[in-house]
Amino acid sequence: MKHPITALQFDLHPWQVSTSEWNNDSAMHQETLFAVANGYLGTRGTMEEQHGNNHQSCEGTYLNGVYSREKITYGEVAYGYASHNQKMLQVPNGKVIQLEIDGQRAHIQDAQSSCRTLDLANAVFSRTMHWQSASNKKITLQSDRFASLSRPNLLCIRIQLEAVNFEGKVKLSSLLDADYGFAANPDDPRVGQLNMAESLQLITSEVKDLQASMLHRVRGSSFVVSSAISHTLPDNVKSVTEIHHNQQIGFDYELELKANQPVTLIKYVSYQHSEQDNPATLEQHNKQLLDEASQLGWQPLYQEHQQQVADFWLHSDVEINGDPALQQGIRFNLLHLFMSAGKNGKSNIAAKGLTGHGYDGHYFWDSEVYVVPFLLASNPALARQFLSFRYQTLDAARQRARQMSHKIGALYPWRTIGGEECSAFFPAGTAQYHINSAIAHAIKAYFNATRDWDFMCRQGAEMLFETARLWVEIGHFSARHNGQFCIDMVTGPDEYSALVNNNFYTNAMAREHLQFSVTIAKRMQQDYPEQFGQLCQDISLQPQEWKLWAQAADKMYLAFDDELGINPQDDSFLDREKWDFDNTPAEHYPLLLHYHPLVIYRHQVLKQADVVLAMYMLDDKFSLDLKARNLAYYEPLTTHDSTLSSCIHSIEYAETGDFQLAYQFYHDTVRMDLDNLHGNTEHGVHTACMAGSWMGIVHGFAGVRYRNDELYFAPHLPASWQSYRFNLTYLGRHIQVGVEAEQVSYQLLSGEPLCITHVDAKIELVPHQTITVSL
Amino acid sequence: MKHPITALQFDLHPWQVSTSEWNNDSAMHQETLFAVANGYLGTRGTMEEQHGNNHQSCEGTYLNGVYSREKITYGEVAYGYASHNQKMLQVPNGKVIQLEIDGQRAHIQDAQSSCRTLDLANAVFSRTMHWQSASNKKITLQSDRFASLSRPNLLCIRIQLEAVNFEGKVKLSSLLDADYGFAANPDDPRVGQLNMAESLQLITSEVKDLQASMLHRVRGSSFVVSSAISHTLPDNVKSVTEIHHNQQIGFDYELELKANQPVTLIKYVSYQHSEQDNPATLEQHNKQLLDEASQLGWQPLYQEHQQQVADFWLHSDVEINGDPALQQGIRFNLLHLFMSAGKNGKSNIAAKGLTGHGYDGHYFWDSEVYVVPFLLASNPALARQFLSFRYQTLDAARQRARQMSHKIGALYPWRTIGGEECSAFFPAGTAQYHINSAIAHAIKAYFNATRDWDFMCRQGAEMLFETARLWVEIGHFSARHNGQFCIDMVTGPDEYSALVNNNFYTNAMAREHLQFSVTIAKRMQQDYPEQFGQLCQDISLQPQEWKLWAQAADKMYLAFDDELGINPQDDSFLDREKWDFDNTPAEHYPLLLHYHPLVIYRHQVLKQADVVLAMYMLDDKFSLDLKARNLAYYEPLTTHDSTLSSCIHSIEYAETGDFQLAYQFYHDTVRMDLDNLHGNTEHGVHTACMAGSWMGIVHGFAGVRYRNDELYFAPHLPASWQSYRFNLTYLGRHIQVGVEAEQVSYQLLSGEPLCITHVDAKIELVPHQTITVSL
Repeated sequence: MKHPITALQFDLHPWQVSTSEWNNDSAMHQETLFAVANGYLGTRGTMEEQHGNNHQSCEGTYLNGVYSREKITYGEVAYGYASHNQKMLQVPNGKVIQLEIDGQRAHIQDAQSSCRTLDLANAVFSRTMHWQSASNKKITLQSDRFASLSRPNLLCIRIQLEAVNFEGKVKLSSLLDADYGFAANPDDPRVGQLNMAESLQLITSEVKDLQASMLHRVRGSSFVVSSAISHTLPDNVKSVTEIHHNQQIGFDYELELKANQPVTLIKYVSYQHSEQDNPATLEQHNKQLLDEASQLGWQPLYQEHQQQVADFWLHSDVEINGDPALQQGIRFNLLHLFMSAGKNGKSNIAAKGLTGHGYDGHYFWDSEVYVVPFLLASNPALARQFLSFRYQTLDAARQRARQMSHKIGALYPWRTIGGEECSAFFPAGTAQYHINSAIAHAIKAYFNATRDWDFMCRQGAEMLFETARLWVEIGHFSARHNGQFCIDMVTGPDEYSALVNNNFYTNAMAREHLQFSVTIAKRMQQDYPEQFGQLCQDISLQPQEWKLWAQAADKMYLAFDDELGINPQDDSFLDREKWDFDNTPAEHYPLLLHYHPLVIYRHQVLKQADVVLAMYMLDDKFSLDLKARNLAYYEPLTTHDSTLSSCIHSIEYAETGDFQLAYQFYHDTVRMDLDNLHGNTEHGVHTACMAGSWMGIVHGFAGVRYRNDELYFAPHLPASWQSYRFNLTYLGRHIQVGVEAEQVSYQLLSGEPLCITHVDAKIELVPHQTITVSL
Repeated sequence: MKHPITALQFDLHPWQVSTSEWNNDSAMHQETLFAVANGYLGTRGTMEEQHGNNHQSCEGTYLNGVYSREKITYGEVAYGYASHNQKMLQVPNGKVIQLEIDGQRAHIQDAQSSCRTLDLANAVFSRTMHWQSASNKKITLQSDRFASLSRPNLLCIRIQLEAVNFEGKVKLSSLLDADYGFAANPDDPRVGQLNMAESLQLITSEVKDLQASMLHRVRGSSFVVSSAISHTLPDNVKSVTEIHHNQQIGFDYELELKANQPVTLIKYVSYQHSEQDNPATLEQHNKQLLDEASQLGWQPLYQEHQQQVADFWLHSDVEINGDPALQQGIRFNLLHLFMSAGKNGKSNIAAKGLTGHGYDGHYFWDSEVYVVPFLLASNPALARQFLSFRYQTLDAARQRARQMSHKIGALYPWRTIGGEECSAFFPAGTAQYHINSAIAHAIKAYFNATRDWDFMCRQGAEMLFETARLWVEIGHFSARHNGQFCIDMVTGPDEYSALVNNNFYTNAMAREHLQFSVTIAKRMQQDYPEQFGQLCQDISLQPQEWKLWAQAADKMYLAFDDELGINPQDDSFLDREKWDFDNTPAEHYPLLLHYHPLVIYRHQVLKQADVVLAMYMLDDKFSLDLKARNLAYYEPLTTHDSTLSSCIHSIEYAETGDFQLAYQFYHDTVRMDLDNLHGNTEHGVHTACMAGSWMGIVHGFAGVRYRNDELYFAPHLPASWQSYRFNLTYLGRHIQVGVEAEQVSYQLLSGEPLCITHVDAKIELVPHQTITVSL
């Protein structure tokens, strides 16, 4: 609880985030929040008419899974270091529609008033601006924008202009702009660097028939990107002039406005990329898409988009009554997750979604540990797409294991887009072998929630086995630990310790990974002998290997400190000095930006949940007492400098009965980005934390667990709430759970009857029947 | 003993290194060996007439203590990382004298025969080459070259030409060349990168009166460098043409040769640098120096140079009878040490001396741990200069401690030239806090060998105290270790483990450092109260601080493993798996170039002596039995991938009575560079290893130690030797020690009578009397 809660910037509407204030300091933060995306393309909430000079703004339009690639420069290189970085591709900005009256450009910062709203129910960003020129002409601009959830390549923009007190000419300049950039802070390792000119090489551009398009080659990779815009104009356009700047193309439109007669201009922007295709085909697809969009028109396009959003909410909505800030927050978070999540099996979800270039748009374990649980419970098919993405990159993981001098197996990268390890910081990134177990854990969770043997036989088992091999590569049975299986020189989730021996989280997760791999090997051998035989042949898997996995799991060293009655985070954690929190000024957080890593490593201080995360991930391996003792020991040492920390603490406090702390951490989780609690939302939202706001209510307050092959519930209502309600998808069923002060109701909205456990009672859910249980 | 001994490239002459073979593969190795230097300027043994195209060569002329400075780029930066690198300055090459006959350039690679010799007695590099042109003209070229040890700015070159079978014109082009470079291997962290054009910015150049000069500004620093050449010509020069290329200036000389009438051209090259001076003054100094040299002429300049070399050998020579390879090797090594050692208190000795750009010309702890012992025993005034260099950079060390988030004290850099930390690899470089104790150890050794209170009061004590403070900053009394003082997250000398807790070497050296600091504080307080009071005021030192140092030293945690009867290298070393040496192919050494650091860290495998080094440094803190057990445990785990390792092992094997192994390691130490045993002498000699060849005979075979405030000897003659003899300077005495099969003789060549200990007998040495003791 280190971060003060700042004043609210937004009205607390349950289905929208809206503000009528604009100020320079929060401009970039709000650009992040007002981003729209559809899993493939995302664009920040900057203004069509663009910001004025000397005003803060960070333009950005991104394509998920598409990246530039450049060699990493090291001050001092060592064997096996990651060689290249991949950066989420920043594509030409197609949003630009500059507005000019009497030679003066309109900007939000000198508007008389303005209002911006993200409509959470419909995934549309809308704006209104009242502006007056120096020549005293008043105009109202209204715009709507959505990244089509039904057509992933398409961004739709509608601008309405109304002359309030004049008649006459205004100029609109609609551009496709490939010449923008942003100077990031080079000393903050969490911020990605951006240089558009360095990453995009123009091949061709064309301007004609109200359409403009560019074709770029992405430097350092084989990607080719086509970007295009088209327009549907109002009748009163008096002249059209083509614009052919070097990397800026488009049209100037001169409109003749009549007072109080609004006119509407619609702009479609579309992006296509390819690694192989003929660029000509790519451009043709783009043109086709724009032509189709123009023919269909705004309303039908909007309706098919809306339908997708409605489907999403049907299975995902969380209702919180009595806490408007959190009601707004959780819907905002869930919508952004949905908008940022790659849906094509070739992309994933970046730590910052498609809302900013922080962390260079990389995918981390955030996907598997934080986002997959939410997807599993709302859209299991999408969860499978996430796991398929990992399967697509399994070869890269094998290659990475070889680079790291491992003779066998696969090592998934700490951070990547295309599968290649991009982490240049080996004491943390490279040493975080627990990424392998996070992926195995997600495969297990997916399997438990779907029993999808098709996936397991085609992809899951191969990933499980290849990654399991790494534990035996890096661990060993230690004579000096009574023959127990020890894993040395790794970094756990808490990056404020590094290169430690027997990180508790890592060992515990490795055990689960090995055990589940053995389980699957045995069951597959029995039930799918042909596929199993083929897989063993493909990856040269011998029975003695999984016997060794079983032994390693069985003998896994999981430390327990008798004196403190807790699990030590690693072999030497408890020997270290405790961090001097009393003499650490507030402005020295996050510690990583104010202390050398060695100073941090030398102390008992945590960036984020580590043993506490293991308690959440491996739920039933800990008694409630042990959970409470671990929490009581570790939380006071935790800075929560990572946004991945608060939701886990909320869940564990809820489980161990400290609902007041659970609520505080939950509040921080849900309002993280809206209230900019970590002060860096300008670089993008925190998708793991957003997913944490779902976990916090479902796994935290509602106590949902997967235990003994069944769903388990132990709901609790936070004191300040009237009630809450959420949806769960599980083994083909759609369940809705409502929690009130005195009772909880379970409803099977679709699917076959299902047995669940409520605390210690078995309940059978049948369709169209609400079962209510007293709390 | 992992490195095969290659075929000898040189005749085994006791006072010279000479070869009449030239081949492309060993060309760069030999350029290193044939370098000449004088502590300020050094130049590699490349040919005046330069190498032909497609032949390997690494040109290099360096100024000690002068460097370019550039920002370090990190793949992922963190707080407190070293921000800039300093690179030993590569200055314009003034050696160039190209020889051309009938339009054809002469090169060594197409000579009929050639011979190159480094004269160890006189520090001169001489060459003879017989060459025949395509037009069948035979010519003999003879050259001599020395970096004047009496005039540190001056390099002298003499070329003699003799037409063997013709009369007629030849052309000599004598240049000052600022346009040369070398493409190093970017994947080998041990090799420095070089780009001359990036580091030197031409301000002015001038060519007139047989002199040519250039003035450069060094990019990224405030250094200005003046380089100049002048010539003394023979009578038969027919024409002189000035050369004014961009960064290449000089003269074309056309000579008319008569058959068998040798002619001589003398070239002086001089370099000056300044950080403040008026560049004009700098150039004037240079011109003055060249004018003086021309007026004096070759022979007087050579004689004053010779005198310096003779003085050096008088106090430094080591005679080995019966082992020509080692006799040659040790003299070669000692001469290179002398030539590379900075002598002005503002420079030090680079890991590669002034012979190559390996490690960017950085100074490491090699200076204090390896080179200072030799200097102390041969030239204590020079040893003081080395320590003064550290005092000059104490402010930078204080600043570094602040950057590393330490509130107090000074942290010397792992690698530097001007004092700033240049190590970009924090798990090793930055974490090697033992650099502080190495400097304290050298101060202690200097003090023991000189009782120089003047130095101690002016510089030594301040360095000791400021660096001692760091131990209390990073260590702590650990409740979980019975209140013992523990030091976590450091890297010891063995870089094949990193970020460990309680590295034995570090803790043991820290204890000595703290104890000696307390001793000096007490004695200074008593004997030099005024200076002590002033110092305490200057650095705000409180009595409770050195009381804390005494407690920390007293409670220092120094582990001993009861089961193995050895000192564990660190808290977790013995828990690790042993490296699989049997399945490591020879070409996978050094391991650091073939395995990711994490893989190496995860095993019991050493790059170099660690506990074994502590045994050498802290001699009497170990019983002989313990030394033998430590050796027996650690040596089989040691790759000796560092050239710092073999001499220490030789010494410790000698002390524990395994003279066969002692000899093998000693052989590797002495012949390291001559025989290129690590395959990378092309980037420069290994100065620490060279100094190790002195340590190996004096501290190893002769068993010299400083014990109970006295010199202690326990000599032994290796089986294959007839005898050996060495010199020692100690407390103002010059002692010569001769060891034969049956007896050892001690002779006091100058100074007051002195008591020494021979094994267990006290001996009083008096002038002009040889004391002989039976072995």
